Amino acid sequence: MSLRHFLNTQDWSRDDLDALLAQAAAFKRSPQGRALEGRSIALLFFNPSMRTRTSFELGAHQLGGKAIVLSPGKDAWPIEFEVGSVMDGEAEEHIAEVARVLSRYVDMIGVRAFPKFQDWQVDRQDRVLKSFAKYATVPVVNMETITHPCQEMAHIMALQEHFGTTDLRGKKYVLTWTYHPKPLNTAVANSALTIATRFGMDVTLLCPTPDYALDPRYMDIGANNAAESGGSFRMSHDIEEAYSGAQVVYAKSWGAIPYFGRWDQEKPIRDAHKHFIVDEAKMAMTDDAVFSHCLPLRRNVKATDAVMDSQACIAIDEAENRLHVQKAIMAALAGQG
Amino acid sequence: MSLRHFLNTQDWSRDDLDALLAQAAAFKRSPQGRALEGRSIALLFFNPSMRTRTSFELGAHQLGGKAIVLSPGKDAWPIEFEVGSVMDGEAEEHIAEVARVLSRYVDMIGVRAFPKFQDWQVDRQDRVLKSFAKYATVPVVNMETITHPCQEMAHIMALQEHFGTTDLRGKKYVLTWTYHPKPLNTAVANSALTIATRFGMDVTLLCPTPDYALDPRYMDIGANNAAESGGSFRMSHDIEEAYSGAQVVYAKSWGAIPYFGRWDQEKPIRDAHKHFIVDEAKMAMTDDAVFSHCLPLRRNVKATDAVMDSQACIAIDEAENRLHVQKAIMAALAGQG
Amino acid sequence: MSLRHFLNTQDWSRDDLDALLAQAAAFKRSPQGRALEGRSIALLFFNPSMRTRTSFELGAHQLGGKAIVLSPGKDAWPIEFEVGSVMDGEAEEHIAEVARVLSRYVDMIGVRAFPKFQDWQVDRQDRVLKSFAKYATVPVVNMETITHPCQEMAHIMALQEHFGTTDLRGKKYVLTWTYHPKPLNTAVANSALTIATRFGMDVTLLCPTPDYALDPRYMDIGANNAAESGGSFRMSHDIEEAYSGAQVVYAKSWGAIPYFGRWDQEKPIRDAHKHFIVDEAKMAMTDDAVFSHCLPLRRNVKATDAVMDSQACIAIDEAENRLHVQKAIMAALAGQG
Repeated sequence: MSLRHFLNTQDWSRDDLDALLAQAAAFKRSPQGRALEGRSIALLFFNPSMRTRTSFELGAHQLGGKAIVLSPGKDAWPIEFEVGSVMDGEAEEHIAEVARVLSRYVDMIGVRAFPKFQDWQVDRQDRVLKSFAKYATVPVVNMETITHPCQEMAHIMALQEHFGTTDLRGKKYVLTWTYHPKPLNTAVANSALTIATRFGMDVTLLCPTPDYALDPRYMDIGANNAAESGGSFRMSHDIEEAYSGAQVVYAKSWGAIPYFGRWDQEKPIRDAHKHFIVDEAKMAMTDDAVFSHCLPLRRNVKATDAVMDSQACIAIDEAENRLHVQKAIMAALAGQG
Repeated sequence: MSLRHFLNTQDWSRDDLDALLAQAAAFKRSPQGRALEGRSIALLFFNPSMRTRTSFELGAHQLGGKAIVLSPGKDAWPIEFEVGSVMDGEAEEHIAEVARVLSRYVDMIGVRAFPKFQDWQVDRQDRVLKSFAKYATVPVVNMETITHPCQEMAHIMALQEHFGTTDLRGKKYVLTWTYHPKPLNTAVANSALTIATRFGMDVTLLCPTPDYALDPRYMDIGANNAAESGGSFRMSHDIEEAYSGAQVVYAKSWGAIPYFGRWDQEKPIRDAHKHFIVDEAKMAMTDDAVFSHCLPLRRNVKATDAVMDSQACIAIDEAENRLHVQKAIMAALAGQG
Repeated sequence: MSLRHFLNTQDWSRDDLDALLAQAAAFKRSPQGRALEGRSIALLFFNPSMRTRTSFELGAHQLGGKAIVLSPGKDAWPIEFEVGSVMDGEAEEHIAEVARVLSRYVDMIGVRAFPKFQDWQVDRQDRVLKSFAKYATVPVVNMETITHPCQEMAHIMALQEHFGTTDLRGKKYVLTWTYHPKPLNTAVANSALTIATRFGMDVTLLCPTPDYALDPRYMDIGANNAAESGGSFRMSHDIEEAYSGAQVVYAKSWGAIPYFGRWDQEKPIRDAHKHFIVDEAKMAMTDDAVFSHCLPLRRNVKATDAVMDSQACIAIDEAENRLHVQKAIMAALAGQG
């Protein structure tokens, strides 16, 4: 049997995802366990983290395991990912050695590596994560790269809790773009689209213009997932139409892919759509929708204080669930050994 | 019953402080415990730390708990503390979310956040710490902001050990300003004044000029504490008079509050008072006084090698006691749950 | 009995080193232990680390202990090492206090402190490490300064595993300089020479010119160790002659000591010797030699992909062994208590 990683939810069957969610719910009721007794996980952060760092480190500990936190290029050596390159630049070490050595020390490797935002054709290869999965001889976990599958699981768990059922089919789900002063990673948007269609919801991707469509890979995943799960997927640029009757509003900002690497040209478009902010007026158009966001969130830029502090907001629950789902994921991966 | 934090010693009764000190002494004799079994604490460092970091992380571990160390703005996201602000600047996340999410993960939050040294009217609000206490749903511990209550406890414990009694009433205590090339936080000075008067000592604040008086809030605390405890509190600018007959000399450098934000104007005043250094000649004026400092200390700037290496110096004992008192504090806060 | 540190292998008897290697092999078979139960170690990194950090932190944990990771000057205070200095520069704290305070908190202190590369006469004093050993009241472990004794132990262990015997006497061992775009620390070269001669191998130091000879201290250690162990030691600048018949090839880049602090003058010499790269042609001259390197390694600069990915390469095994030997070292040092 080949080694199983947790790189993307699409690599896992619905049954497997359901089992992870059930295990996460069990951990939420009873946090301590021994699934990682004598095991360890290296957490590699190429980018900053608060929730991910805390929830993985604590989660490993609560299951009897040990997390080692590393920041390559800051307190560890910068890493080369190109195969066959003559390493006479900045990188002191090749991923082949990093992944193989870490695999000797630890039982699992978590990787956070955001896109570089220079060239989407490069970023979309998800090279850092894929390289770890290629060279590591232990399971690799995606802690956010160009997708964020742990967030997906926490999000679904929070929706299941909110609606009081594991069956989310037919829920009217709006994934809305929001303004942010900088172009951001599409990871959480890719992920929300992926998982919402996977679980059979009727998904609307609301964004300012067609330029804010996600990469065709994820648009296709959305369409295919919807077809398989009995849900639906469409894109809209009409705020009122999209919000109308919504039962879930999930907000995220992201940069427009056609403008990758020439962000000064995208800026005026983004700046012209600050009104995509999630506010009470928009929430009032919905069918008493629940609101969430992956955090961090800029208040009064992406969503107003009133929305964030309302009963409808389950962003804190979703963040909490990161701990529970990640424990379930680590326990499942450790169970292979 | 409302949630109890450890923000300042003034919020705790003398009986409570005495109980903490007794517990700390017990931990010093027998370091291992289970008071934090299955519990965790997030340690947020907005500023560097060696003793605080080590003693909190190790202390939690020795009581069966788990510390998670975070550095917001460095390896975690920069945080907004203003209520209602439109977050279009540097901060990616509001304290409301940070505190609420961390409260879901951990059982306690420690915060180190030094003043910004631009505007004392802002700094004196202790906004970072107060905001955590406001939004967190778990106990918050002050790991040094504009006061340093953990240092206070370690200091008192070291004095009690030195004098062989828990009763410090009537001890002649000199809190002396010393030179440092940079303007420093008044936190430890505020704290030393607070706790020395609380425990009934006869306290002299020795500093170059009236400009080096502490904020009226702490001057008032000093006066009120002295009145309640039967001690005394006065300010002096006369080195010989202050040192004469002293039983405790506690040194600290700090910036003059009237010069906040225009430090170039304060510099010549500071530079003219390098002779405030604690040296053997000054220590010889005392009644065989014990010397201490919170560390870090610049040798031969704040105190001479001879004083630091003398038997009279208990700075290392005081630093060690940080571990013991913080374990007592964490155990007390965890006991609420 | 005086306190025992692990600063250099030369301070330890061959019997002691053999016992450490035997214990390391035992830990490799059975990783969990209790030798550090209730104990702790502070790991001070003045320079970046991946393997060292992970293996020490995890190793302490697997033996029931707790590691605290500190980065002075980054997330802790910058430190002064000069005795008697007037500390009015950058350093906020003297090693005397740092070492004494840490000694109160933890049971062991690990130190990584690379040379500054300005003045070898200063660097060769190994002042940071020596200062910790001087002031600490707990054992100090060298995590790489101007030598790297933990790497030595891991290297010997990997060779013993490869050859299937603990007796390495008479093996033809080539320590070859290789090109690197920057002048690097001589630590691993000093260490390889020290330990290879200690274990009785026939050691050739292969380097471009006599300027790349190691410091006379280590050249003398090499000669003396060889005389005592029945091995041999010589320097060569002839690649073909050195590789011919070799059974072990160990590669490392380092800066030429006569050019310390004027590296622009050394650069053309280094640049003229890129052909020292370890490649298949050179390995073909050997007696089926095993290849290793301490890592990090720049592929296709120090060694080719073909060599790194060949069966002859045991660099990953050597890296793994860091964990095992360091656990043996920590257990031995803790055993003094």
